[in-house]
Amino acid sequence: MFIMNTLKIFVISLNRPFTFTEQMTSREEKASKMFSCSERERALFEAGIKMGTIYHQFVGTPVSPHNVAELEQAIERSVKVQPFVESVKVRIVIRNTEKKDTYDYVSLTGEMIDTIVKISMKGVTVTAEMRYIEELDYPLMYVSDISS
Amino acid sequence: MFIMNTLKIFVISLNRPFTFTEQMTSREEKASKMFSCSERERALFEAGIKMGTIYHQFVGTPVSPHNVAELEQAIERSVKVQPFVESVKVRIVIRNTEKKDTYDYVSLTGEMIDTIVKISMKGVTVTAEMRYIEELDYPLMYVSDISS
Amino acid sequence: MFIMNTLKIFVISLNRPFTFTEQMTSREEKASKMFSCSERERALFEAGIKMGTIYHQFVGTPVSPHNVAELEQAIERSVKVQPFVESVKVRIVIRNTEKKDTYDYVSLTGEMIDTIVKISMKGVTVTAEMRYIEELDYPLMYVSDISS
Amino acid sequence: MFIMNTLKIFVISLNRPFTFTEQMTSREEKASKMFSCSERERALFEAGIKMGTIYHQFVGTPVSPHNVAELEQAIERSVKVQPFVESVKVRIVIRNTEKKDTYDYVSLTGEMIDTIVKISMKGVTVTAEMRYIEELDYPLMYVSDISS
Repeated sequence: MFIMNTLKIFVISLNRPFTFTEQMTSREEKASKMFSCSERERALFEAGIKMGTIYHQFVGTPVSPHNVAELEQAIERSVKVQPFVESVKVRIVIRNTEKKDTYDYVSLTGEMIDTIVKISMKGVTVTAEMRYIEELDYPLMYVSDISS
Repeated sequence: MFIMNTLKIFVISLNRPFTFTEQMTSREEKASKMFSCSERERALFEAGIKMGTIYHQFVGTPVSPHNVAELEQAIERSVKVQPFVESVKVRIVIRNTEKKDTYDYVSLTGEMIDTIVKISMKGVTVTAEMRYIEELDYPLMYVSDISS
Repeated sequence: MFIMNTLKIFVISLNRPFTFTEQMTSREEKASKMFSCSERERALFEAGIKMGTIYHQFVGTPVSPHNVAELEQAIERSVKVQPFVESVKVRIVIRNTEKKDTYDYVSLTGEMIDTIVKISMKGVTVTAEMRYIEELDYPLMYVSDISS
Repeated sequence: MFIMNTLKIFVISLNRPFTFTEQMTSREEKASKMFSCSERERALFEAGIKMGTIYHQFVGTPVSPHNVAELEQAIERSVKVQPFVESVKVRIVIRNTEKKDTYDYVSLTGEMIDTIVKISMKGVTVTAEMRYIEELDYPLMYVSDISS
């Protein structure tokens, strides 16, 4: 069995060059086998990962009205290169916007982040959102929609 | 008017002998209403958040055999204070362990992280894992078990 | 007593038509007094801070040829809002650039960062650089020039 | 030629074991040549790097009274593995310490960090500190002492 598999890989290697699609299938097929859940459930897990990524990668970044647009775009684009992200919209809400002196920038906090991420995989689309909820005094990450 | 508002807040404060339990129910109840999915699906989303947190908060941290145990424990404990985490185990695999000179530490990368997180909420337990999968050449985050 | 304090704050607020310049002088003057070193020495300290910021804020960010330009710009702009930064140039060197499948992005590492930051304060300009030095197998941060 | 070089490396290998000191000199000697400043000035730069590291690596980490001691220690130890750090003391000041419900942890902010780092290299010791200065409403990093 082991030899058969090795042979198969060998034969596949001879048949190269790999097309892009073929490789994608290959890695995603292997990854997919690691999951003990449905595709729909996996899409929810992936949505959660992206929320954690946005928060914990970028909280702490120096931000002021002078760089807020670039930072929003950079966060969107860096999430977009991750697997299964259909779309991502990030808005950073700076409460104190007046540039009064050289110390008047802030470090990005979770409370300032307002984001919507759509994960799409194998026919399922999950919409997840994060924003500061005043009633909770907490920047909540939540699932706002699933469609399949 | 300003004074009136201050007085109102003052009076409200006097009226509030909140118990801990009451507040917990209150916030979690409110949060719960934001979700457009089942409890089981939410548990998967929460598991994803924790995976993204571990990766993106700590990748980059200076690590060597001298601080690896403390860092593992600190990551575990910081994930543990987040909602719905039943247990978390982190192991950091440093390939080159020889402390040869002052520059011989590394920055934590995703490839070095090996972790198992259990999320438990309202009767559902999700087990998520992250580790470097050589076949994929990728530190994969995946769902290894769901039970309810 | 509570109301009295509130009133005092209110009165103080009325007394303050702070100009921007005044505040700037004021904060920087106060900050400046905390330093037990020369202006030239402080400029070196500030240069070091910016290097640590670039490295530890952004290492871990998902990056591929699709978002590398935006990420470089966002890092530059976020460092630029910090005090005393005259200029900052960031280049991210991705070794494996072929987008073959959905997993083919990388997490930013220190080895990929190439940067030059100029700190300018009170007549002193410090130029600091960071890049991977093959001979050292280490992303070195160093001072390449001081002029005053 | 290739064989000659290989042989040379082989012979050098036989001559090992390298002592720690020997290797340290080697890499540190090479690194040292990249700097266009005095040792004293380099020590200030290194102190700044460590301040930026502490702030931007760890801001965002979930923290509550349940994990604050472990996090303080992990930050200290991870800074300690970096070059030229003689000592580092980190204290995290959580203002709201009451664990009332599952959402009652916070994300580490710069305002919560209180730290003293001593950099020691080639006869110079720089002491740098970071803490929230109320008068500035800013977590200031500053040089509190240099001795040589």
